[in-house]
This record gives sequence, C-alpha cells and structure tokens, in this order.
Amino acid sequence: MRGIRQLAKHLDISIGTVSRALNGKPDVNEETRKRVLAAAEELGYVANQSGRSLRQGTTNVIGLMIESSKETVENADNFFLGLTGGLQSVLSRHKLDLIMLPCPNDEDPQEYLKRMVTRRVVDALIISATQRIDKRIDFLAKAKIPFVALGRSSSGGNYSWIDLDFEGVAASAVDRLVAKGHRRIAIAVPSTDVNLGYIFLDAYRSALERHGIAYDPALVIRAKSSEQGGYQAGDELIRLDPRPTAIILIYELMAIGLYRRMVEAGIVPGRDLAVIGFREEPRARFLQPTLTCFRMSLRDLGAELAETLLATMPAYADFYPGGARNTIWPLELVAGESDAFSLDS
Amino acid sequence: MRGIRQLAKHLDISIGTVSRALNGKPDVNEETRKRVLAAAEELGYVANQSGRSLRQGTTNVIGLMIESSKETVENADNFFLGLTGGLQSVLSRHKLDLIMLPCPNDEDPQEYLKRMVTRRVVDALIISATQRIDKRIDFLAKAKIPFVALGRSSSGGNYSWIDLDFEGVAASAVDRLVAKGHRRIAIAVPSTDVNLGYIFLDAYRSALERHGIAYDPALVIRAKSSEQGGYQAGDELIRLDPRPTAIILIYELMAIGLYRRMVEAGIVPGRDLAVIGFREEPRARFLQPTLTCFRMSLRDLGAELAETLLATMPAYADFYPGGARNTIWPLELVAGESDAFSLDS
Repeated sequence: MRGIRQLAKHLDISIGTVSRALNGKPDVNEETRKRVLAAAEELGYVANQSGRSLRQGTTNVIGLMIESSKETVENADNFFLGLTGGLQSVLSRHKLDLIMLPCPNDEDPQEYLKRMVTRRVVDALIISATQRIDKRIDFLAKAKIPFVALGRSSSGGNYSWIDLDFEGVAASAVDRLVAKGHRRIAIAVPSTDVNLGYIFLDAYRSALERHGIAYDPALVIRAKSSEQGGYQAGDELIRLDPRPTAIILIYELMAIGLYRRMVEAGIVPGRDLAVIGFREEPRARFLQPTLTCFRMSLRDLGAELAETLLATMPAYADFYPGGARNTIWPLELVAGESDAFSLDS
Repeated sequence: MRGIRQLAKHLDISIGTVSRALNGKPDVNEETRKRVLAAAEELGYVANQSGRSLRQGTTNVIGLMIESSKETVENADNFFLGLTGGLQSVLSRHKLDLIMLPCPNDEDPQEYLKRMVTRRVVDALIISATQRIDKRIDFLAKAKIPFVALGRSSSGGNYSWIDLDFEGVAASAVDRLVAKGHRRIAIAVPSTDVNLGYIFLDAYRSALERHGIAYDPALVIRAKSSEQGGYQAGDELIRLDPRPTAIILIYELMAIGLYRRMVEAGIVPGRDLAVIGFREEPRARFLQPTLTCFRMSLRDLGAELAETLLATMPAYADFYPGGARNTIWPLELVAGESDAFSLDS
C-alpha cells in the first residue's frame, strides 16, 4: 500500500504539493494535479484515513452487530441483509458507511462487542438479538458509545431501541383465532433467552385472558427458530391430547417444517389446524395453503434504525432532533388460507 | 468513551502505572491492579487500539465484501453468512476478526471498495461476486492490499482465488441427463455479468459437444438468480417448441419457482421434466419430488478462503506456506427424484 510519501518521492514533488493536489486545493496548477492523480492511480496510492480518524476520533463507520448462529445460517435468514439497504440510505446522506459485525456463535456476545469496540473500527453501533438481561447495553452506555438496540431488554437506562410490535401480533392472532371458534391455541416460542420470546408469550397470555381463556402452559411449545424447529413443534403438537386446533408461530420459517410434519400425520393445515405465522417471508408465499402472517418493510425499519442512532450521535443530532427514543414497529396483517376455516363446535 | 488519561486522573495514579496494570505487567502490586481494573470496568474504559494500529499499520480485521442486492436479500441467501463460521475458525487462531462489508446495490463495487480501503478498517479483503472483468482485482493488486477472490475473473495477474467447480457440476449434470435419454437440455444462467455465468455456460456447452449434441442458444434461459427467476425460467421453458425435457439450474432457489410454474402448467417435475439444481439447500429439501443437486460445506470453504488469504499476508505466510494459489472447490452430487426417470424415446 503506497502512501503520500512514496507518491511524492516518485513524482519528485513536495509532500505538501501532493497533498494539496489530492485534496483538490486551488493553489495547485492543473497539470500538476493531473500528474499527481495519474501517479496515485498508477502506484495504487491509498489515503491513510486511519491517521485522519485518530486525530478526529471518528471512523465514519457504523457497525451492525449480528449473531451468525448455526440456526441463522441454516435458515438463510435474510433479516439483517434486508435491513442494510434502509440503513445505508440514511447513513450515506452523512457519508457514513455500514459494516456488519458477525459475532461467532461460540463467543460471548459481550466479549465480542468489547473487542470490536477496542479495535475502534466503528463510531457507533446497532446491536440486535437483545437478551432479557443484556450486558452489552450497560457496557455501551458506560463507555459512552452511541448505540441503538434492535429489540428491548430488561436492562435499564435511557437508551434508544426499536422493537417489533410483538404485542400487536400476538393480540391480533389470538383475536382472529378466537373469532373462528378456537379455544385451544398453541404457541411456539424460542428455546433461547432472547427477549422477544418473553414479550410474545406475555402478550399471548394477556390476549387469551381478555377472551376469558385460561392460560395453559402445556400449549407453549419451545422450539428452535428454524424450519427444523417448526417440524419439531409440529411433532409436539400432534402428541398433545386433546390436540390444539390452532397454533401461532414466532418465526415465519417454522411454518415450512410444521406443514411438513402435519402432512406426514395426515393433518391438513387450514382445515384441521389453523396456523398463523409471524413475518411475511418470500419463501412462505410458496406454502399451500397460504399462510396468514404479518407484513413489515425491512428497508423502512433499517432507515428508522439509522435515524434513531444518528439522533444519539452529537455530530448528527441536529439533523434528527428528539434524542434517545423508543419505537414499537408495527406489522400489518396479511390474511391467508391457513386460518380461514371456522371451527365446528 | 473514557481513555487511559481519565482513568489515571480518577484513580490519582500515574498513567504509566495504569497502563502496566491494564497490560498485566508484573511490576504492579495486586491491590493496585484490582483497583485499576475495577475502575476501568466502572468508568467504561476502552483501550484505544486505533492508536496502536496506526503505529503497527494493522487493524487485525479482515473484511468480507458482499453485494447486498435486492435479489440476495429477497432470497435470503445464506451463502455469505454460511462462510463466516469457517472464516472465523481460522482467523481466530491469529486473533483476527472478520467484518462484512455490504456494498449498497446502487453503488459501483469498485468505488465502494476504494472507499472502504481508504477508511483503513481492514488489513486484507475477501471479495466475492467477481465480474468477468473485475477492476477491484487490479486496484487491490496495485495498492498491495492482500486479498483473495471468491470467484475467478478474466482480469489478469497472479492473485489468489477460490471458485466453485462449475465445470464439474455442468459436466456431471449433462452426463446424467444424457444417460437418461435427454437431448434437449435447457440451462438457466444469470442475467447479470457475474463471471460464474460464463464459466457454467461454457462447461455446459463442452459437455454437450462431448456427447455429440449441438449447442442450441434457444435453450439458454437468462433469469434472475431467485425463486422469481426460477418461475420466469419455467415460463420461458414451457413456451419453447419442442419443449426441452430437462433443465439445469445455476441457482438452487430457482427450483422452488420453477416447480411452481410447472405445477401450474400441469407439468410434473421428475416425470415430465428432469430438473437438476445447483447447490444443496436446506429449503430445497422440502421440494417434492426431491431435487438432484450438489453438496458442499460452506464452513470448509470459509476456512479454505481464510487460509488462502493468510498465505498472502506477510505476517502469516509462514503458517500457510505456498503463497498465492488458485483452488477449484469440488461439489458432491446428491441424487434426488427430480431427474430419476428415463426418457421414452
């Protein structure tokens, strides 16, 4: 990698002149400027922005921390890639770049985050997959590193977060099913300690109570958030006696595995079992019967995440007034055939 | 973000002592060390590795550049996330971290790469989605930035690359189909300028010629590498007269859309049309009839990419002798039902 010193030496021009030419300063004549730019291209000159950022204390890079777990990978989850377009559309207004920080699945997320912060590759962070108690939040707050969390946590403090409207989804799903005559409604929640599982389950419980249906822990199926998890949830479901007549899934791709297990058992989704999925997913479009699910724009969510983050960064707060804020991100029901039938009572 | 100066002031200890305590030097007494570490935790002290890296000229971070195109996102492509585990397993041996650099889909990949190099967030790069002529390769070679390309290119020079065995896949697919009596074999290739499309098509053509079958450009269907692309390819296929009896797909998820279009047209894959997909994919497992495809380990490929890259980096070359190298990555046939029938002649 050639720096400005080698470039100046090669051209036999002072470093100051080369620097002014590269930075487009007016006090360099046009011919010299062209010579410098041509040599920079030819020699593979690369500006050392690391020196610049050390002086300014900024990198102009924003990090999106994701967990590259086996489940995420096997299920080809497009969620995070889906956010990048929206994030970049906002960050690019301020000449900021986005990088993704994939936490290895055998490493503690907090330790990983600390190391990446120490490496100083980013000015600010978006963290995801928040745990019920998430030490990353305290760490970032103490270290005064601007961040926004995608997902709530019980960890305290006045920090910015955006989370999906799990309450709205659970309530809407229970309401629909009860209206069709269902009373034994199962729910599949994550087997991990991710906070969204708690929120979703609480909301399901409240919605049942609103309809005067007693909460039955036996109908809560803990499963991996994957197609395989959906298959296993289906397996558990058919062994419940009496069998639930409906199931709500926390993760859209579970529906594929669930459908498969139902077909094997001679149970027809949308006729013998009502199914409501979570987020609308291109792949779930191919399911027969079509899945009732909830729509959201990942691009818009990405843009909102970026604006929320910038609002907490002193250099950009003027553009995005309001400071730290918390947003519940709405999802819109997409009615399918999977829960269209009414239960014979 | 608190630095060592604030920490020393808070503790009323010299910066030198704080530094020695933080770095675990033996000439600091145990009590002082504990006090320093507790205060560091309490105040949110973060070591400034950016200063360190400027002196050393390294960041200890490796970048994986990916293109976050609409297609990639909509199809939830797990390819790149699938590589991270293998990459990290090798990089962690040397205390190197991996970050992902998602190139916005409205930006020129070369301009994006140049900017990220200027930001100096990484020591070395893995580039992917190589174009037939790929200016990034010349740029990185000139700038003397260690890199490995995932994908060949016609762009010259002695650089390291790893590419999938498209030739082997195309030859194996054509051989299987010809053995079952097929002569009109269509192929679906990408509609973009990505180099793998050229390589795959050339290999298909050679394999046909080996069997004495004339190459027919009408049987080459250009389609997006997505489920929707598969649907469109299916649409084109059924309008060909006479209709091909077999199709080879360059992208596994195309099979889902293709199957859907066939079912709509009353054509049964695996009975009326032989289908061979590309890479084995968890989701394609759910297709009926099961898809003949090719298996590879993304984790192993990730590890090989990391070792190939480290072999080109002076600081690590001793661990991975051999220097720049080019590897064709094999895939293993997984026979399914989608091409099991023999053609009545």
